[in-house]
Amino acid sequence: MVQFCMCVKRGKKGAGGNRKSESEMTEEVRKKLEYVNKTLTKAEIYQHAATVLQYDQETICPPKGMEEQGEVSAFMMNRAFALEKSKAYTEAIVFLYQHIKELDEFDRAMIVTEYRSYVKNKNITPAMQHKFSLVYNRAFVNWVNAKQQADFSIFEKSLKQVREIELKKISLRENAKKLPYDELLDDYEQGMTCEDLDAYFGMCRERLVPLLQKIVSSKKKIRTDFLSRTVTEAQQKEMAEYLLKLMGFDFERGAFTTSEHPFTEGLARNDIRVTTHYYPDMFYSSMFSIIHEGGHALFEQYQPQENYDHHLNNKTMGQHESVSRFYENRIGRSRSFIHLIYPKAREIFPQVLSDVSEQELYEAMNTVQPSLIRTESDEFTYTFHIIIRYELEKQIVNGGVDIADLPGLWNKKYEQYLGIRPQNDRDGVLQDMHWASGFGYFPAYALGNMYNAMYYNRMQQDFDIEKAVAGGHLDRINDWMKEHVWKKADRQDPLPWLKEITGRDFTPDDFLNYLEKKYTEIYEL
Amino acid sequence: MVQFCMCVKRGKKGAGGNRKSESEMTEEVRKKLEYVNKTLTKAEIYQHAATVLQYDQETICPPKGMEEQGEVSAFMMNRAFALEKSKAYTEAIVFLYQHIKELDEFDRAMIVTEYRSYVKNKNITPAMQHKFSLVYNRAFVNWVNAKQQADFSIFEKSLKQVREIELKKISLRENAKKLPYDELLDDYEQGMTCEDLDAYFGMCRERLVPLLQKIVSSKKKIRTDFLSRTVTEAQQKEMAEYLLKLMGFDFERGAFTTSEHPFTEGLARNDIRVTTHYYPDMFYSSMFSIIHEGGHALFEQYQPQENYDHHLNNKTMGQHESVSRFYENRIGRSRSFIHLIYPKAREIFPQVLSDVSEQELYEAMNTVQPSLIRTESDEFTYTFHIIIRYELEKQIVNGGVDIADLPGLWNKKYEQYLGIRPQNDRDGVLQDMHWASGFGYFPAYALGNMYNAMYYNRMQQDFDIEKAVAGGHLDRINDWMKEHVWKKADRQDPLPWLKEITGRDFTPDDFLNYLEKKYTEIYEL
Repeated sequence: MVQFCMCVKRGKKGAGGNRKSESEMTEEVRKKLEYVNKTLTKAEIYQHAATVLQYDQETICPPKGMEEQGEVSAFMMNRAFALEKSKAYTEAIVFLYQHIKELDEFDRAMIVTEYRSYVKNKNITPAMQHKFSLVYNRAFVNWVNAKQQADFSIFEKSLKQVREIELKKISLRENAKKLPYDELLDDYEQGMTCEDLDAYFGMCRERLVPLLQKIVSSKKKIRTDFLSRTVTEAQQKEMAEYLLKLMGFDFERGAFTTSEHPFTEGLARNDIRVTTHYYPDMFYSSMFSIIHEGGHALFEQYQPQENYDHHLNNKTMGQHESVSRFYENRIGRSRSFIHLIYPKAREIFPQVLSDVSEQELYEAMNTVQPSLIRTESDEFTYTFHIIIRYELEKQIVNGGVDIADLPGLWNKKYEQYLGIRPQNDRDGVLQDMHWASGFGYFPAYALGNMYNAMYYNRMQQDFDIEKAVAGGHLDRINDWMKEHVWKKADRQDPLPWLKEITGRDFTPDDFLNYLEKKYTEIYEL
Repeated sequence: MVQFCMCVKRGKKGAGGNRKSESEMTEEVRKKLEYVNKTLTKAEIYQHAATVLQYDQETICPPKGMEEQGEVSAFMMNRAFALEKSKAYTEAIVFLYQHIKELDEFDRAMIVTEYRSYVKNKNITPAMQHKFSLVYNRAFVNWVNAKQQADFSIFEKSLKQVREIELKKISLRENAKKLPYDELLDDYEQGMTCEDLDAYFGMCRERLVPLLQKIVSSKKKIRTDFLSRTVTEAQQKEMAEYLLKLMGFDFERGAFTTSEHPFTEGLARNDIRVTTHYYPDMFYSSMFSIIHEGGHALFEQYQPQENYDHHLNNKTMGQHESVSRFYENRIGRSRSFIHLIYPKAREIFPQVLSDVSEQELYEAMNTVQPSLIRTESDEFTYTFHIIIRYELEKQIVNGGVDIADLPGLWNKKYEQYLGIRPQNDRDGVLQDMHWASGFGYFPAYALGNMYNAMYYNRMQQDFDIEKAVAGGHLDRINDWMKEHVWKKADRQDPLPWLKEITGRDFTPDDFLNYLEKKYTEIYEL
């Protein structure tokens, strides 16, 4: 659950803080704002506890302790929820929303978020919310067991309950959109609808399917024999720490550890954590997972203090994934980054790389190979993994699919898009934990790629990115990201944010152009 | 703080449960009992969260995240405290204490504990308690920094504040004992006073000081050259897991990880965790620390469900340490245990043990060598480390010592008792984290040794312990411990508990006899 949920708790420093000169505010606005800040500060204490409990559940908690751990976490989230449902609080939110023009940019963003959440949750009582979170928690535990045993039937009942709850929550919303999945998209990525996504993913299919055919049948030989050479945990750990340091991760304000599934957790302004997972026969897996999570972490570590002070934590999952995938792919898998890390990688993994050239490493890190597991897939086929999930979850939510049929449908789609078929549910429908917490998240990954392709092109106008990377000046990139990408993500919805950064309307073209250029070159098409 | 605080949360299953036939209870007793159970169940949720936060602080939390993490934990502990301070709750406790004869054994133990706590905390408000815990938390953070920099002055102010709070809390108690340190002893080890400890430690000094002289000047050569041979973390981890498994630690209901200072944390009935620390040039350090923590963990994992159902968690630190040190020393450093693990140890650490005989390993694990660090000290000199701390903290609390003078006093006592002098505060007064949380804990370690020597002798009457160990039948020992030692520790104060187990009154003699016999033999005196 935490894997994809960048729940960053916002600091307590700003209780009552407000940058707009107080003379412009009426006394009532000032008082109400103070009350909102105070309540959010308290809610954040419960959220902090819940997040540590979830983090613990993902990293250390023993199997039989999981359910109780989840119950305690659910209780804490419920305390936070209840605080934001109190009459005094919701009245203050409605009042401030009506007087939003009197507020400064930060408070406005805070009140807009709180008002949206108030409207969406209006008819959900704390008791209902608590019941829901216990279901999600049990679903998570059952998913863990189901995946371990590669048996979807263990998860099936829970998944049905999750669907029921998701639909129930939507049915309780006033003026809900016609398609329930559009409501969920609105939760994760404001401004996106099924209609939009159908169009964007249609463009992807149109341009990537024929290209994939060409790649698969190309005569280009990419050397991959060294990819499965055995490495130790200690070597991978050394490499991961080198990469985090290189990227500018602040170890005084963050932690780095391991877990079954890599994730990033923002617990507090000074406590942003990344995890990775070590495979003895895939030395590159932990490298790219740590660059990905490191991207998430930089986004959080470089937030301006004002955002914390104003309890702002509104960046969408698409915004977040745009950054992690920017570092993982646009930077991490670039020719210049491979050039930069090649000597160190050879030093740390001599048994893997002593007979491998820089060019061979670059090509191997960019091999296109249809595969079953999303998190291990290459940059090119990744989008297909998302399209498959999007198509399925849209049907799950909007109707038209029986949960029991999911494993078969999943396998069929893998065959259709990628020409391969999972041999069991662990490598198929059970591979991701996301559905234990609901639906609507997956498109964020693909949208993230599209967002970052647009701001990569904008950054390129300011300086030569590949040159900066090759020279090891990642701080230059971080500084640009800080100023243009990170600072305002908590204060703006994705589409206006992207427009402000790039001066252009959203389009998947930049991403598709990038893929076409890069892979045409690598595969000499 | 958690290192020595076996905060085991008690399950939620028993809310309202009561084994005494309900007909023997009046309606009011039944109702009040139900209310108490309900309140304790809720308090335990907050305690669970606080304990996970503390565990996290000790294992993963980054330096700059520590203070906020501690604040959230303090908030949660305060919520639990406030629940137990409510008028309805304290009235129920007083009422049930007056009707204690109507209750069964379990509820009686629960009510006695709650009543004691009510009396002790009567004049402490939740606001005061919260202020106190922030001071302890800051003291912990400062202690970490002070130790890292080997500079007592960083910790000095905090330690003064801790003393102030400890004295303030005692001054708020009605009918407090004459000596403030006696109040603290009563918190950690009911039934013990300074007068008792002075007598017990006097006996230790009398019998151990001359024996130490003999040992130090003995001609016996014990081979120790192999002790500093380098091992990897992976080897130590394999050994630690082997030992935990051998001992009967349940990995489904517990976790095993690492931390700066080894400790055990009981988070829930099905979530008991141990940690260790790996030193590359002390292969045996993690072995004995894991046997020690494993002992704590078994004590918790083998608790009867009824104790959880009745919110019983009253075992004293002396009772707990008696068990951990039983496994660490009486079992772990015995000839038969070394015999049992010798082949496996050779297999895991070939570079250390290939030229070392079983007898040489046994003797090396029992070398007596005055040293500076308590947690690394041998079984024999360990008691001196405790006597030093006891003498100092008694003075800190009862008066007669200036906090600023502690480093010097500490060093002087090490010179006096062990003939060695710390070269810096890290190896001296700053080595233990205990004082950041208050005073009165240390005697528990020495008392634990004395308790287990008494029940070891009683166990020996039932079966041949060394024979069982040599044959690998540790389950036999666990079964005996479960029945005689563990089951009732939550329902009885240490002295009546020991009397019930052994049929005898408490005495340090068994412990001193054991040490004399063992070390006279090893050193051929």
